[in-house]
Amino acid sequence: MTTWKEYLQRNASGFLEDLIEFCRIPSISSLPEHTDDVKHAAAWVAERLKIAGIEDVQILSTKDGGHPVVYGHWMDGLDKPTILIYGHFDTQPVDPLELWTRPPFEPTVNDGRLYARGASDDKGNMLIPILAAEAMLKTQGSLPVNVKFFFEGQEEIGSPQLPEFISSHADMLACDLVLSADGGQWEDNQPAVILGRRGLCGLQIDFRSAGGDVHSGTYGGTFLNPIHALTELLASMHSPDGKILIDGFYDAVMALSDRERAQIAEIPFDENHYKAGLGVGQLFGEPGYSTYERAWVRPTLEINGIWGGFQGEGVKTVIPSSAHAKITCRLVPDQVPDKIVELITAHVERHAPSGATASIQKLPGSADPYLIPYDHPGNQAARIVLKQIYGKEPYLARMGGTIPVSGLFLKSLNAHMVNFAFGLKDENIHAPDEFFRLASFERGQQAYGCLLYTSDAADDD
Amino acid sequence: MTTWKEYLQRNASGFLEDLIEFCRIPSISSLPEHTDDVKHAAAWVAERLKIAGIEDVQILSTKDGGHPVVYGHWMDGLDKPTILIYGHFDTQPVDPLELWTRPPFEPTVNDGRLYARGASDDKGNMLIPILAAEAMLKTQGSLPVNVKFFFEGQEEIGSPQLPEFISSHADMLACDLVLSADGGQWEDNQPAVILGRRGLCGLQIDFRSAGGDVHSGTYGGTFLNPIHALTELLASMHSPDGKILIDGFYDAVMALSDRERAQIAEIPFDENHYKAGLGVGQLFGEPGYSTYERAWVRPTLEINGIWGGFQGEGVKTVIPSSAHAKITCRLVPDQVPDKIVELITAHVERHAPSGATASIQKLPGSADPYLIPYDHPGNQAARIVLKQIYGKEPYLARMGGTIPVSGLFLKSLNAHMVNFAFGLKDENIHAPDEFFRLASFERGQQAYGCLLYTSDAADDD
Repeated sequence: MTTWKEYLQRNASGFLEDLIEFCRIPSISSLPEHTDDVKHAAAWVAERLKIAGIEDVQILSTKDGGHPVVYGHWMDGLDKPTILIYGHFDTQPVDPLELWTRPPFEPTVNDGRLYARGASDDKGNMLIPILAAEAMLKTQGSLPVNVKFFFEGQEEIGSPQLPEFISSHADMLACDLVLSADGGQWEDNQPAVILGRRGLCGLQIDFRSAGGDVHSGTYGGTFLNPIHALTELLASMHSPDGKILIDGFYDAVMALSDRERAQIAEIPFDENHYKAGLGVGQLFGEPGYSTYERAWVRPTLEINGIWGGFQGEGVKTVIPSSAHAKITCRLVPDQVPDKIVELITAHVERHAPSGATASIQKLPGSADPYLIPYDHPGNQAARIVLKQIYGKEPYLARMGGTIPVSGLFLKSLNAHMVNFAFGLKDENIHAPDEFFRLASFERGQQAYGCLLYTSDAADDD
Repeated sequence: MTTWKEYLQRNASGFLEDLIEFCRIPSISSLPEHTDDVKHAAAWVAERLKIAGIEDVQILSTKDGGHPVVYGHWMDGLDKPTILIYGHFDTQPVDPLELWTRPPFEPTVNDGRLYARGASDDKGNMLIPILAAEAMLKTQGSLPVNVKFFFEGQEEIGSPQLPEFISSHADMLACDLVLSADGGQWEDNQPAVILGRRGLCGLQIDFRSAGGDVHSGTYGGTFLNPIHALTELLASMHSPDGKILIDGFYDAVMALSDRERAQIAEIPFDENHYKAGLGVGQLFGEPGYSTYERAWVRPTLEINGIWGGFQGEGVKTVIPSSAHAKITCRLVPDQVPDKIVELITAHVERHAPSGATASIQKLPGSADPYLIPYDHPGNQAARIVLKQIYGKEPYLARMGGTIPVSGLFLKSLNAHMVNFAFGLKDENIHAPDEFFRLASFERGQQAYGCLLYTSDAADDD
């Protein structure tokens, strides 16, 4: 009889074809013109779950016409633990398109990597547990635990309709543990258990001044250029050495314990390697914290975009009527997204130059920061499997990025989330030339199979 | 016999058709894809000069493949003064296109105004003296003075090849006085003689940091976001009350004499009207100077455009690899454009945050500031004609904008330039919905005819 592991090996090339097909769908959740593509991706996922042998597969809509979710489960009615596996089928936008070596939605295999927008974040990773479940169901007809699959289509815009959906579907989603198939491992040959993630909030600041664009010769010097107002305001938000100068911004930040600092310090850090990976000549940030501490356990305020006036070739002697900036903050326990938006709004009200009119819009996608106890049973199970698969003790790390649902699951389902995914840092997620390693794709399938067995055991402890 | 004035009246509708045809040519000098349109505009001007009866009409190329110039003259060989009439047939770009009520290169007459990019700046204005000359040549067969026409196609990008052209064609262009058909009058019923214009220099600042765009969750807090570097640097260039903080920036600025301040103060200023015209709630600028002083005799440093990162709808949690700003300065006597670029470069070197790499490129289009004695004979002639046409003594004003050639003519031809043009401040030049008043178009033709007679007389003084 074929074992589930053999099934995975025999079907490897077909599974890669599946992933390529999945990555062809330009399911960019932030752009209205791709709404139908996100729906298309949802239909693809639902169909793939059915092929795998998952039951009760449904595409469910979310409130206010938000992007849909896909649900399916395998439940044998016995008193086994229930694992909910989470991932997302939407992708980031692709701009700047000109920096891509290949078209982002024409997946290409090259040198053991699949290049495509969404290949690593999160299509490759979310397909892994579906294939692992298929292997077990096709070879042995059952799974060692009850499994619920829950995939969303709005992660890249901060999951705006998901809180409502999860709290209104708490029975359907009820589980003992959530596994996140969105995320990654430390390195190709080094696993990690992720103890925490930063939260997120965002806002846009718009300055308006004259009624229209005007000639900088005729009017220059007589009123406040909105770009000047914007740069002055934005510059007031950081100290030159990288501290955030918003009043009260750090008030709720949990002090780092000695044990937490020690856990982070145990993870080797090669500054030259890190700089080379980023392509920067030097690192920079809040004094008093190591690079990993700044990336994981300290909050940020980043300007993700700025624009106003003339951006073309040559010269245009204009004073534009408006100037704009998009800001997101990465938050750490116990910062509260809405409170941080309030504090920034108060800063704008206090510091915006009075010659131009500032307005603020909160952007969608708030998420609480997340922290899971390092000795949580789900983490123990993950640790055991990762050690077995990689032959190395996983690091106890954190991630600087955000998975909005982790906090939601805890609040609505009372279930902690354990990261179990196989992306790697260098895979250009959110950037041009995103890729996913085919080795990770295959190893992940084996690991997920092992984890479903181990979760059963871990729950028995 | 038909007088030249009658000729102008009888041909008014045909001349408007000419202007409409001229404004249909999208001769945007700053955009490479419109290079052929600038050539097309040059050919149109040359043809129109020939129709008017002007002799020796030539389209001449400028160095390095720059946009061409058009020359033509009427010289009767007698010992009359020679007037060179200057204007330009290129236009500003049209973005933001979505703010135009009508397509910018489909000229439309509405309520006594011709709407089109370039209608006021400078196609309507530069066509005026050609038509005035035609009226005299067709009715009386001669002009009261020798006239040279000299039109360029690169004014809106700062006339980069014109210095070389003028100095290498000084014999061809030799004259006693230059009249600028680029500029305007004070109001519909109030003329002005313009004594000075500000100069110009420009540069672009680019910050680079990471090798590519990266994820703000993974890397936020570990290195300097180039947008942060840029906003911090730009904010360091102005004090909150509007002074320019570049070391040495004001060193060469000529102090304003009591007479000059008095001349400016004599011009009525209605702050509410001015604010309403701009659509701003309040005026703003360097303390210690009136609004007109700030607009005319004080230098500026304006950010004309800024960009970097994500500008789309929604959220993209990215740290971009670069951030950019375009800056131009309006200069006053005796500031020197290259020296100002040097001072700003030194400021960038001193103040650019060290976590990102700043580079500077000087933009084309430098121009010296310009000042003409208020009692210059050319000004006297203009004053007489304007008083006669408008029935009012002209204001002795300055303009905040730049006509790069004014300084060049003085240096290469030893001839001062007198503004004689009919644009008005509200005509949206350099902005969406540019227009030119048909009344100004017709009155300007009469005024040019009168001025050619008066210039003859003025020269005899």
